[in-house]
Amino acid sequence: MFKNPLLEEWSAGRATLNGWLASPCMSTAEVMAHAGWDSLTIDMQHGLADYQTAVAMLTAIATTDVVPLARVPWMDEGIVMRMLDAGCLGVICPMVNSQDEAARLATACRYPPNGRRSYGPIRAALLSGSDYWRHANREVLSIAMIETREALDALDSILDVEELSGVYIGPADLSLALGCEPTFDQEAPIVEDAIEHIITTTKARGKYVGVHNLTPAYARRRAEIGADFVSVSSDLRLMSAAAKAAVAEFHGHGPKHSPPPDDSAASY
Amino acid sequence: MFKNPLLEEWSAGRATLNGWLASPCMSTAEVMAHAGWDSLTIDMQHGLADYQTAVAMLTAIATTDVVPLARVPWMDEGIVMRMLDAGCLGVICPMVNSQDEAARLATACRYPPNGRRSYGPIRAALLSGSDYWRHANREVLSIAMIETREALDALDSILDVEELSGVYIGPADLSLALGCEPTFDQEAPIVEDAIEHIITTTKARGKYVGVHNLTPAYARRRAEIGADFVSVSSDLRLMSAAAKAAVAEFHGHGPKHSPPPDDSAASY
Amino acid sequence: MFKNPLLEEWSAGRATLNGWLASPCMSTAEVMAHAGWDSLTIDMQHGLADYQTAVAMLTAIATTDVVPLARVPWMDEGIVMRMLDAGCLGVICPMVNSQDEAARLATACRYPPNGRRSYGPIRAALLSGSDYWRHANREVLSIAMIETREALDALDSILDVEELSGVYIGPADLSLALGCEPTFDQEAPIVEDAIEHIITTTKARGKYVGVHNLTPAYARRRAEIGADFVSVSSDLRLMSAAAKAAVAEFHGHGPKHSPPPDDSAASY
Amino acid sequence: MFKNPLLEEWSAGRATLNGWLASPCMSTAEVMAHAGWDSLTIDMQHGLADYQTAVAMLTAIATTDVVPLARVPWMDEGIVMRMLDAGCLGVICPMVNSQDEAARLATACRYPPNGRRSYGPIRAALLSGSDYWRHANREVLSIAMIETREALDALDSILDVEELSGVYIGPADLSLALGCEPTFDQEAPIVEDAIEHIITTTKARGKYVGVHNLTPAYARRRAEIGADFVSVSSDLRLMSAAAKAAVAEFHGHGPKHSPPPDDSAASY
Amino acid sequence: MFKNPLLEEWSAGRATLNGWLASPCMSTAEVMAHAGWDSLTIDMQHGLADYQTAVAMLTAIATTDVVPLARVPWMDEGIVMRMLDAGCLGVICPMVNSQDEAARLATACRYPPNGRRSYGPIRAALLSGSDYWRHANREVLSIAMIETREALDALDSILDVEELSGVYIGPADLSLALGCEPTFDQEAPIVEDAIEHIITTTKARGKYVGVHNLTPAYARRRAEIGADFVSVSSDLRLMSAAAKAAVAEFHGHGPKHSPPPDDSAASY
Amino acid sequence: MFKNPLLEEWSAGRATLNGWLASPCMSTAEVMAHAGWDSLTIDMQHGLADYQTAVAMLTAIATTDVVPLARVPWMDEGIVMRMLDAGCLGVICPMVNSQDEAARLATACRYPPNGRRSYGPIRAALLSGSDYWRHANREVLSIAMIETREALDALDSILDVEELSGVYIGPADLSLALGCEPTFDQEAPIVEDAIEHIITTTKARGKYVGVHNLTPAYARRRAEIGADFVSVSSDLRLMSAAAKAAVAEFHGHGPKHSPPPDDSAASY
Repeated sequence: MFKNPLLEEWSAGRATLNGWLASPCMSTAEVMAHAGWDSLTIDMQHGLADYQTAVAMLTAIATTDVVPLARVPWMDEGIVMRMLDAGCLGVICPMVNSQDEAARLATACRYPPNGRRSYGPIRAALLSGSDYWRHANREVLSIAMIETREALDALDSILDVEELSGVYIGPADLSLALGCEPTFDQEAPIVEDAIEHIITTTKARGKYVGVHNLTPAYARRRAEIGADFVSVSSDLRLMSAAAKAAVAEFHGHGPKHSPPPDDSAASY
Repeated sequence: MFKNPLLEEWSAGRATLNGWLASPCMSTAEVMAHAGWDSLTIDMQHGLADYQTAVAMLTAIATTDVVPLARVPWMDEGIVMRMLDAGCLGVICPMVNSQDEAARLATACRYPPNGRRSYGPIRAALLSGSDYWRHANREVLSIAMIETREALDALDSILDVEELSGVYIGPADLSLALGCEPTFDQEAPIVEDAIEHIITTTKARGKYVGVHNLTPAYARRRAEIGADFVSVSSDLRLMSAAAKAAVAEFHGHGPKHSPPPDDSAASY
Repeated sequence: MFKNPLLEEWSAGRATLNGWLASPCMSTAEVMAHAGWDSLTIDMQHGLADYQTAVAMLTAIATTDVVPLARVPWMDEGIVMRMLDAGCLGVICPMVNSQDEAARLATACRYPPNGRRSYGPIRAALLSGSDYWRHANREVLSIAMIETREALDALDSILDVEELSGVYIGPADLSLALGCEPTFDQEAPIVEDAIEHIITTTKARGKYVGVHNLTPAYARRRAEIGADFVSVSSDLRLMSAAAKAAVAEFHGHGPKHSPPPDDSAASY
Repeated sequence: MFKNPLLEEWSAGRATLNGWLASPCMSTAEVMAHAGWDSLTIDMQHGLADYQTAVAMLTAIATTDVVPLARVPWMDEGIVMRMLDAGCLGVICPMVNSQDEAARLATACRYPPNGRRSYGPIRAALLSGSDYWRHANREVLSIAMIETREALDALDSILDVEELSGVYIGPADLSLALGCEPTFDQEAPIVEDAIEHIITTTKARGKYVGVHNLTPAYARRRAEIGADFVSVSSDLRLMSAAAKAAVAEFHGHGPKHSPPPDDSAASY
Repeated sequence: MFKNPLLEEWSAGRATLNGWLASPCMSTAEVMAHAGWDSLTIDMQHGLADYQTAVAMLTAIATTDVVPLARVPWMDEGIVMRMLDAGCLGVICPMVNSQDEAARLATACRYPPNGRRSYGPIRAALLSGSDYWRHANREVLSIAMIETREALDALDSILDVEELSGVYIGPADLSLALGCEPTFDQEAPIVEDAIEHIITTTKARGKYVGVHNLTPAYARRRAEIGADFVSVSSDLRLMSAAAKAAVAEFHGHGPKHSPPPDDSAASY
Repeated sequence: MFKNPLLEEWSAGRATLNGWLASPCMSTAEVMAHAGWDSLTIDMQHGLADYQTAVAMLTAIATTDVVPLARVPWMDEGIVMRMLDAGCLGVICPMVNSQDEAARLATACRYPPNGRRSYGPIRAALLSGSDYWRHANREVLSIAMIETREALDALDSILDVEELSGVYIGPADLSLALGCEPTFDQEAPIVEDAIEHIITTTKARGKYVGVHNLTPAYARRRAEIGADFVSVSSDLRLMSAAAKAAVAEFHGHGPKHSPPPDDSAASY
C-alpha cells in the first residue's frame, strides 16, 4: 500500500522542503534528487520541460526517494492526468481563480466516484504497485495556485472544494497583481499580508499550503507561520548564482562581497 | 485518391485488429507495424508519447501499410488537428460525455463546410497526395470514447452528431464508473451489459464501434457481437508479459504454468 | 530597455518579411536565421515542432538578430504564455472567431494590470534583460488569425480589443471558408476582396496586419496595399521546391522549364 | 562499499539471467527492469541505442536493483569508459580476436595501477557512492566476445589477460565464422562444440563466461554446462513474437499452433 | 531476395542522382525523400546527424523507395557496421588513403567468409527480409573517398581491394590537398585532371565511382565522363539558397539577378 | 576575419577562466554562457553530452560571446573534426601519452598543408564567416591532456609537435597515476610538483597551458604560476553544492557552517 511521504510529514507537523526544476534535463533532475530535498517540482509552466522531457526527469527522480510533483502549464485535464499517470504524487496548477476552476482541478486528480480522473496509471503503477488506483485518491495531491486578486477574493469558496488538497502561493504573480514588482521574497506589506492571510485561512480550513521562495531564510519564515511545504530557488537559479559567484571570486571579489541572490531580475 | 483501408474492411463486414502503442519510441512502433495489425493507435492519453515523439512513430508506421490512429490526451482542437495533419487517419478522443463534446470533436476533424478543421495537412498530404483535402472528410475517422455514466446516458444524443464517425469503448474507465474494478476484459454483468448496449446501439445508428481488450479471445467475442475494430493489449504489456514468462520459464516454471495476463494491475 | 525591432520598422512605415518554420529542427532554424528574414515564425499548428523543439529553435534564432515569433496550435493560455516566456516577441493564434477569443489571447500576452499573463520569463529575461517585464506589454505582439466566416463577421469587434496588437490572414483557410480551394496566393475575387477588406479595416483601426503568402511577388502585392508583415513560403517548401528543381535540371529540364511553386498541393 | 550483485551470485555458483535491450527507449528499459532479470544489457552494437539514449536507459534501470551492462559498438576506449562512468557495472566488447585487443579492453576498465581508465565516474559515483573508485577495479566487469575463428584460436592467450573478467559467446557470429547460418540456438555440432569448448576452457581458467540465447530452454542448457550468465531474446524480439502471436490467435490460430520463435530471420 | 536499386541502374549504364542530408532532422529527410533523388546520403562527417538521429532519418527515407546511404565520420568499424544494420545500402568512408584502410572498410561491410562484418541487421532485415544476410555481401556498397594526395598516389592499390565496391570523390578536400581553394564545382585544371583521372581509372578497374557536386549542371558533366552516381548540393544548401533568393526577390532583386550558388563559403 | 578571443587574451598576458559543462543540456549551457566565463568546455569524456546534444549546447553558447571548447571522449579523428566543424574554437583531448598521439591530434585540427583536417565547417562557417577556413589553422586550438606517467615522461617530445597549441592538466587522473587519491585541488607534493613542472615546461616552449580546478582560489594559484586558462568546478557540481547548501541552511545549518566543496567524492 503506497504512501505519499509528504502527507506523513505534514500530518506530523513537519514542514517539507521542495526543490524546483526549471531545466528540461534528466541529469540536472538526477543531481537535484541527490541534494536532500523532500520533494522536487517539475515546472512545466515557467520552466522549460515539456511532457516528454518530464517523463525522463521523473524517471531520474525515481532513482531516489524524493517525492515528484509537477506544476502544469495551465488548467487542462490532459496534462494534469498525464503527469499523475507518469508518477507524480501531486500536481500544482497555476492561476486558479474560482471555485469552478478549483473543482475542475481537484476532480481531475480523483478517480470516480470522487472525481473524473481517467484510469491508466502507466508509470504510477509501475512505481507504486498494482493497487495504486485503490490508494491514489487519498495519496495524490491537487494544489491550486493562489496568485491573483480574483483568487484572493474567491479563496473561501476555493477552499470549499472538498477534493482539493491545498493551495500554493506564487509571490511574483501575487506581487504584480497587487501592484508591486514581481519578486519572490517580497517585503511589501500588502503582499506579506496577503501571503499570511492565505496561509492562515487555508490552515484553518484543514488544507495544505505551500509557498514559493528565493532563499532558505525566507522559506523558514513561511514554514514558521504555518506553511506545510516551501520551495527555495530552482536548479537553474542555484547554478547561475553559484557560477557567477565563482567567476567573481576568481576575479578577486571574494564570497564575502558577492551580491545577494538577484531576485527581481531572476526568471528561472 | 486516397482511401482509409479500415473503412473498406468495415464496409465489407470485416472486423479489424488494432494494436496499441504506449511506449514513446519509434523503434517499438516500427516493430509493431511489422507484426500484422490492421491499425496501430498511438496512445497519447495513458501512453507515454507526446506530439513530437508521435510524429516519429507515425513515420515508422508509414514504412508499412498499417493504418495510423491516435488517442489524444483530451478534447483539444490543437492536438486533434495536429495528429490528423501528421498523418493519422483517425483520432480517438477520451471522455466524451455529451453531444456538445462529440460535436466539438467531430467538427475538428472535418474541413469546411462540414466542420472547422484548419488547413495544413503537412505529413498527411505527403503520404496521401496533394488532393488529400478533397477526400479527408470522407476518410478520416473521429471517434468518441464512451466510458462514463454521463456518456452512457448521453449515448443517443452523441450518436446524433452526423459528422462523428463512431465510438470507442474504454472498459477500465467504464468499470470504475459503474462501481467495478478497472480491468479490461471485464466479466461483471453490469459492465458487460453496458458494453453490449453501446455496441448494438451504435451499430443500429449506422456508426462504427471499437472496443479496448486485453486478450485476443476477448477481442474476438467483441467482434462477434458487432464491434468493427478491437484492440488487444499494448506494446509494453505484450513485452512485459513475454519477458516475465521467459524469466519464469528459465527458473523452471514452464509456459504451461505461466499465469494468465495480469489485468487489474496492468497500467499500460 | 529592450525593443521589438518589428515595431520600429512598422512605425517607420516599412513592411517586414517573415520566414516560416515548419520543420522541427534547430539546424534548419539556424540556417533560416542567416538567410535575411526580418522575423521567423515557428509554426506549432500546421508545422511539426512541439514546445521542447521550439525552445531549441528559439535558441538557434537567438544566435542572430532575427525576431522570433510563434504560431501556437490553438488558443490555450498554457502554450501562449510558454512561448513568450521562451523568448518569442509575439504569438500568432489561429482561428480567432470572436471578440471573446481575441480578448482571451490578448490578455494572455499582457502582465497585469493590462492582462493576466503569469510572471516567469525564463528565456525572455535572459535574452532581453532583467527589466523585461517592465517593457513586455509594449513590445510583445498578440496577433489573431482571421481565417473563417465568423471571424470576417466579427472583425470589427475583434479589433475593438484594445490589448490586441493585430491580425494575421490565413488565405488557405479563408479560401476554404469562402468555398474556394485552399491555396495561398489565391486569385479568386471573393478571397482577394476579403483579404483587402481585412487589411484596410485593420489599418484603419490602428492595428498591425500580416499575410501568409507563397511567393515573394504576391507578398510584395500585400505589402503594397498596407500589410505590415508578410510571410513567404516555409523552410520545408523552399527546400522541397529547390530539391525538385535540381532533380529536374539534372534530368535535362532546366530551370526555365521548372514548374511554378506548387500551391494547392503544398501542405508545409 | 558497493558490490556488483552478479559477482555475488556467480561466486555462490548461481547462474544469472540477462535481458537484452535493443530498443533505444527509456520506457522499454524501465518495463524490462521490472520483469525479473538479474541484469540488463544495453546493446549498442546491433541494438539501436546510442550513448545519449543509453544514459536515459541506465537511469530507468537504476529505479530498480537490476544490474546494468552495455555491449559497446566496437573496442574503443571512449565508449568503454563512458559507459562505465554512466553507471554500467560491466562492458561487453564485440569481436575481440587477440590478446592485445583483450588487454586493451581490460585495462580500459581498470583504474591505475591496474589499468588506464580515466577518472570521472559521473553517474557511477552518484549511484554507488563517493568511494566508487576504490572498489571499481574489483566490481566492474570487462567481458570480451569470442565469436570468430581468430578468437577461438587465441582463446588461451586472451584468457591470459589478468585484468579481463571473462568472455561472452555470440552464437550467430560464431556460426557464420564456422560456415553455418547465423542463428542463436544453434544445433550444428561444430558450433555446439565450439561453445562448449569456450565455456569449459574459460571456467578452467577461473574467469566468467556468458552466452547469448534465443529461448529460456536453451539458456538453461548453457547454464547447466557452466555458463555464469545467460541472455534470452531481447526486448524487441519478445514484443514482436508476442504481438505476432496475439494477431495469430485473434485470427483463429491459437497459441498451440503458433510457430516457435523465429531464429534465423531474427535480427533484434 | 532484396536488391540494391542503385546496382541495377549502374549495370544498365544509367548514372543515378544522390541527394545529401546535412540537417539532423527526420522531417527534412522525409521531404527530401519525396523530391525525386535516386538515393540520399546522410552525412555524419560534415553534416550534423549522429547515429541516433540517423536512425530516425533512415526511417523517414524508408517511407519511400529512395536508397539510403551514409557517410560515416571516419573509418571506424563500430559506426560502419551500425549504419548497415540500421538499413543503409552503402557506406561512404572519408579520407581513405591506403590499401590497408580500404581493406578495413571493405571487410567491415562484408559477412564472413568475405569479410568480418558482425551479424545483427536489426533494421536491415526488417526492411529487406529475413534472408538479408544471404544477399547483403552482394548488394551493400562500401565506398572509399579519394580526397588527398596520399589517396591519389595509392589509387591503384586501393582499387586492388576486391571487396571494395567503389570510390567517391570529395572535390573540396581534394582541392585543398592540391593547393586550391576548397570549392565543389572546381575549375582549376589540376583538380579537374585529378577528378577525371580517378573516374577513368576506377571505371577501368570495374568499380563504381561517385562525385560530390554543387550544381546539377556540373553533376551532369561528371556523369557524362563516367561517374555512376553524382551528388548535388545538400538539404541545407538548397534551403538556404532558396530562402536567400526569396528574400532578395521580395526586396526587388528578382531571380534573374540572384547570385549563383555560393560555393567557396558554403559548408553544408 | 574571425579571431579566437582566448588567443587575444593570452597574448596580452591575461589568464582566462573556463567553465565546465557536464550536463547534456542546452538550457544549462545557455545559463552558464550568461554567467561570466571566458570560455565553456563541453565535456564529452566524463560529462554526459554526446555529439548531437553538444551541437545544441554549442548553439546555446553561440547566443553569447563566450568561446566554445570541447573535451572529446578519446583521440578519434571523427569526433575531433566534427566538434570543430560544429563551431568549437578548440578541442581538448584526454590521455595523450606520446608524440605520435599528440601529432595525430594536432594534425586533425589543421587543414592542409599543415594537417589533415577534412573540409566542411558547417556551423563554424555559419558563425565565423565564409573565410573561416583561411584563418582556422591559426585560431583553432588543439590541446593535449597530460595526466599519466607516460605523458609526464614524454612531455618534451609532445611539446615538439609544432602544430599542437598546448596542453591541459587533469589533476585527478594525474593524482591516480602518481599514487594519490583522485582529487582536483590536490595538495600532495608529488602532484603539485608535477603540475608546476608541466606549467613551466610548457610555457618555456612557447605553448599554452590550462589546468582543471575545483575552486576559484586554487584556479587563481594556477594562473599566478603561469597557466593561461583555468577551469573551475562544473555546471553540475556548482548546482549540486548550491542545492546542498540551501538544504542545509533551511535545516538550520547556516552558510558559515556549510562544508567546503566535496572534492574526492565529486565526479561531475
